[in-house]
Amino acid sequence: MIDLRSDTVTKPTEAMRQAAYEAEVGDDVYEEDPTVNKLEERAAEMLGKDAALFVTSGTQGNQIAILTHCKPGDEVILEQDAHLFVYEGAAMSALAGVQPRTIKGERGAMSPADVASAIRGEDIHFPETGLICLENTHNKAGGAVLPLENMKTIAQIAREHHIPIHLDGARLFNAAAATGISVDRYAALTDTVQFCLSKGLGAPVGSIIAGSADFIKQARKWRKRLGGGLRQSGIVAAPGLVALNEMTERLVEDHQHAEKLAAGLAELDGLTVENEVETNIILVNTKRAGYTAEQFLDALRAEGILAVPFGAHTVRFVTNYHITEEDIESVLTKVNQLVN
Amino acid sequence: MIDLRSDTVTKPTEAMRQAAYEAEVGDDVYEEDPTVNKLEERAAEMLGKDAALFVTSGTQGNQIAILTHCKPGDEVILEQDAHLFVYEGAAMSALAGVQPRTIKGERGAMSPADVASAIRGEDIHFPETGLICLENTHNKAGGAVLPLENMKTIAQIAREHHIPIHLDGARLFNAAAATGISVDRYAALTDTVQFCLSKGLGAPVGSIIAGSADFIKQARKWRKRLGGGLRQSGIVAAPGLVALNEMTERLVEDHQHAEKLAAGLAELDGLTVENEVETNIILVNTKRAGYTAEQFLDALRAEGILAVPFGAHTVRFVTNYHITEEDIESVLTKVNQLVN
Amino acid sequence: MIDLRSDTVTKPTEAMRQAAYEAEVGDDVYEEDPTVNKLEERAAEMLGKDAALFVTSGTQGNQIAILTHCKPGDEVILEQDAHLFVYEGAAMSALAGVQPRTIKGERGAMSPADVASAIRGEDIHFPETGLICLENTHNKAGGAVLPLENMKTIAQIAREHHIPIHLDGARLFNAAAATGISVDRYAALTDTVQFCLSKGLGAPVGSIIAGSADFIKQARKWRKRLGGGLRQSGIVAAPGLVALNEMTERLVEDHQHAEKLAAGLAELDGLTVENEVETNIILVNTKRAGYTAEQFLDALRAEGILAVPFGAHTVRFVTNYHITEEDIESVLTKVNQLVN
Amino acid sequence: MIDLRSDTVTKPTEAMRQAAYEAEVGDDVYEEDPTVNKLEERAAEMLGKDAALFVTSGTQGNQIAILTHCKPGDEVILEQDAHLFVYEGAAMSALAGVQPRTIKGERGAMSPADVASAIRGEDIHFPETGLICLENTHNKAGGAVLPLENMKTIAQIAREHHIPIHLDGARLFNAAAATGISVDRYAALTDTVQFCLSKGLGAPVGSIIAGSADFIKQARKWRKRLGGGLRQSGIVAAPGLVALNEMTERLVEDHQHAEKLAAGLAELDGLTVENEVETNIILVNTKRAGYTAEQFLDALRAEGILAVPFGAHTVRFVTNYHITEEDIESVLTKVNQLVN
Repeated sequence: MIDLRSDTVTKPTEAMRQAAYEAEVGDDVYEEDPTVNKLEERAAEMLGKDAALFVTSGTQGNQIAILTHCKPGDEVILEQDAHLFVYEGAAMSALAGVQPRTIKGERGAMSPADVASAIRGEDIHFPETGLICLENTHNKAGGAVLPLENMKTIAQIAREHHIPIHLDGARLFNAAAATGISVDRYAALTDTVQFCLSKGLGAPVGSIIAGSADFIKQARKWRKRLGGGLRQSGIVAAPGLVALNEMTERLVEDHQHAEKLAAGLAELDGLTVENEVETNIILVNTKRAGYTAEQFLDALRAEGILAVPFGAHTVRFVTNYHITEEDIESVLTKVNQLVN
Repeated sequence: MIDLRSDTVTKPTEAMRQAAYEAEVGDDVYEEDPTVNKLEERAAEMLGKDAALFVTSGTQGNQIAILTHCKPGDEVILEQDAHLFVYEGAAMSALAGVQPRTIKGERGAMSPADVASAIRGEDIHFPETGLICLENTHNKAGGAVLPLENMKTIAQIAREHHIPIHLDGARLFNAAAATGISVDRYAALTDTVQFCLSKGLGAPVGSIIAGSADFIKQARKWRKRLGGGLRQSGIVAAPGLVALNEMTERLVEDHQHAEKLAAGLAELDGLTVENEVETNIILVNTKRAGYTAEQFLDALRAEGILAVPFGAHTVRFVTNYHITEEDIESVLTKVNQLVN
Repeated sequence: MIDLRSDTVTKPTEAMRQAAYEAEVGDDVYEEDPTVNKLEERAAEMLGKDAALFVTSGTQGNQIAILTHCKPGDEVILEQDAHLFVYEGAAMSALAGVQPRTIKGERGAMSPADVASAIRGEDIHFPETGLICLENTHNKAGGAVLPLENMKTIAQIAREHHIPIHLDGARLFNAAAATGISVDRYAALTDTVQFCLSKGLGAPVGSIIAGSADFIKQARKWRKRLGGGLRQSGIVAAPGLVALNEMTERLVEDHQHAEKLAAGLAELDGLTVENEVETNIILVNTKRAGYTAEQFLDALRAEGILAVPFGAHTVRFVTNYHITEEDIESVLTKVNQLVN
Repeated sequence: MIDLRSDTVTKPTEAMRQAAYEAEVGDDVYEEDPTVNKLEERAAEMLGKDAALFVTSGTQGNQIAILTHCKPGDEVILEQDAHLFVYEGAAMSALAGVQPRTIKGERGAMSPADVASAIRGEDIHFPETGLICLENTHNKAGGAVLPLENMKTIAQIAREHHIPIHLDGARLFNAAAATGISVDRYAALTDTVQFCLSKGLGAPVGSIIAGSADFIKQARKWRKRLGGGLRQSGIVAAPGLVALNEMTERLVEDHQHAEKLAAGLAELDGLTVENEVETNIILVNTKRAGYTAEQFLDALRAEGILAVPFGAHTVRFVTNYHITEEDIESVLTKVNQLVN
């Protein structure tokens, strides 16, 4: 099987397994796991933040950020296709009691003017705007990179209104790999950042949230409430450290593979690549080829290729660590047969 | 002062005051207030529902509906300018833990196709769609009446997906007055309905929610938790009964006044009436006249006229029980002076 | 019927009805109802607080206090039989997300040492103690008055730990009537206070919460979210003003009636008065008389007397505005027949 | 250091590390991690339940159980020193909106009569009783085993009232090791069970919740919302499987060590063992020896021994996989010096 469903399917490398095997561990609830501590320090340093916290998933990191930044009855401004809004089971409302205020973006980027006008004024009827969330790269927008300028302008607006700003950077290292802008430059624009050690970086489990020391202190208690306070978590932090140290640069390869795959698919009859492919995600429209997304996915599966639906006629492919240049060629050959 | 800020400013009539004075009362927490019971029966009957509950405001009625229909982590589909989303302090997320899923409507009416495609499928990442909310008439859309056909089609979709549907009918009697369609025909399309005894009907305090007997039983406990379980509430239910019995037909006058005011304003230089005026709300754009909304409101106030801002250059006027034909003429004369 | 179920059954006086009839009103959501404003000012003044807010019930006042003082995941210390814990539908957890930490008191009064040791230290596993709640008089403890010294010592502990303290003074005026200590002296010991205009004071509807100006500002938004933002609420605030101005002193009569009733019941075979009757509540144990509470209540009802169950063999009587000295005598005569 | 703070400090065995290294993995969000699936099947089988779910901690398992069983505004009956109440940051109220109703137990066991009388009847003022929670072994009660009979009687009461019952069996295998009663016999008495793979069983990370297939399906979505949906979690499930297969029987050794330590400490001047030591927890009172808990812990630390405070003069020792018979002797020798 050529698994292009997501970069979340990435299996740990030999070095990661070895690291897990050898990990020096302790009880992280007492903050005594040396490997977790090392990972958190390393992550904070890379992001240019005071402190970081190892969490078990991107969803957990995002939810802890909201729980820590907001109070119930606040409103959170975010793009209408944000992972936080679409894919986290309405957890921000269920757990933190906040109301999402969604804005339609352009390739995942909200217009700063729209953000500014969505900020609530003082009125007995209105919630307070408690947080602005950005997502970079933006999953539903096909791995689009938020332009640094866009982030800067929104960050400026947030600062003027004394509203904190959180970056869902589940795939922030993909943005950095695509643009050459280091992750700390993105992170400098937001109060807090979440990024995944799994996905493209290949660690089996885990994400990082980073921010001020005080934020992380409060976040730690929310992590405990969510059940994310682990014991000898060095076992999973160790592969995370390998991911940070060895896997960030190789994301460029995933992007090259994605570009190649997109270019090939775009030439095939009846297929349209919906997104400008900047990173590792390709959205392909199958309508003109006479397929619904589900039909196309069935046909692919029969050929040993996995992808996921992303709309009635849209299929998402994600390149990842396991996908080779040969895989890309093989996919193109097989898809060509399907649409001819 | 000619107060056109809202129909919520309506003061009780002499008959309502008399009714309050004479009200037979009891302890409604024990369901022993005969006036409240009579009001609830009358309201249920008018709406064609099994049971009704007296609540202290439209917001309380809407929130109780959500608390009763939904569980935390559900998603609620509603129009992006719905009162429930814009003007209730994010209470649906704060209290009920549900996530609003907003859809841009046309004159307050969501397209049924948009509603259908917003309903969530089964997926571990997705919330369940727990409720669809409609608002008729639609405040932010300028008192627009939801077409019965639109409501029917959405109701059909809701039924097919086994999703309950709630009608925020704060001004449902305005819809009925405008269309001649009785409130029970609207109410028949939704599981639950909320309407206000205050606003155009002129009662000093209170709203009604109605639905099945089982729904109302559960709603009663949520009302208690919100502090809406009152004691001798016959004192306020009595004017509510007067409102139901004597004030529903007269809404037609408010609509005539609004039409006249809108027609007059539309002729003035620099002013644009933004909405098709169907009921008692007029949205006026002041931009071409060289006024921001706030500036225009200040100028009006200096002339003894009150209205409210509804956007950077939009001002909302609402006709109500206290506004006479002479008031309308006076407003037109004074506004004419302002824009010339 | 002689209705001794509660003082909540009190019907408004002629003066209150007249006040409702004549009330000057406005839209209180815009803070323009002069009667509500007057009531809030008068209440704040009587309690010696900066500001006050009219709410629709004691439950609403208590819940708003918790929502305003606390954040989700806090712990609230209160007596194990507190109204807030027993009779408010778990609303403090449902709405505010706080955990009650109950302490067994003595006649409703928690021992200061128990309060001190219930305050949580810093630990990743622990909630923070967000609020201490007192109840005076204490309903379940039979209308017991919290000793001023007890309140002072607990208030001192709260201050030392920077924990706010709220007084559920639903029947605070009964405490004042019983002890001669004015309500402001009690109120001075706590950050916020709630008291009921209904119950013994006889208003048909409503309670007051009072505190700092900043607290009340935030409380006002929570009131709106709960649906307690009313329109021409002067209609019910006016009787509330009458209650404050004319009804506080007469509570002494209720207490005299209660004392007389308790003394008489205590002499009857098989009945035990469980509480030391300080105010208007009497708890009678019917076990030795061979009655369960429910059986006894049925027998009373057959004689035209109403009371409520307060345990398997405990019945609660509450004297109130409508109960005369003759009623007390009549009750004693009839109960005497029941137990002989 | 001889670390007797908790069994949570247990580091993974060589076999566990090897298992992590070799683990066959997949994306568990797609339910494709074969190792996780195997662990869940094995756990369900051992407990005699339909299905099981791997979660990242005992707290997460308990919270998911409450979120799945209850609705906001429910009341949960549990022992007043239950981990769920004392050590989970008030998460049950913060996340699930439920109110704990605590009962003082005897060695961790609530009296069935107390449970029965804590169940709420139907009343507009009352929450519904949504869940009963038991904890076996009971941490704060010094690792006390809940008697099977006690559990049976409470389970019977729960069933009669149609109230679900959850077992916090974080150390259920300790109970089984102490009594010889297999875990499935305990689990058969409750709807759902949580137990820890970490703690005495030595896995680095993780717990299991088990129940009906439908319960686990819903629990899976709550796990996702809390951020407990992991990717290649076979890496940590693999050591968990080792824990289940190889480590349950050896808990007997921990209990023997605890018994020996307790017997030795009990003989020392000024120390009292507070609990009857049935499993691996010893609570020692240091008051007569002239030490506060903190002073005693400092003195121990200086001797290379770690324990935790459990009250002003109470210190908790927990034996675990790393503690040898020699360690016990060494502790006794050193403590003897401290108290002489």
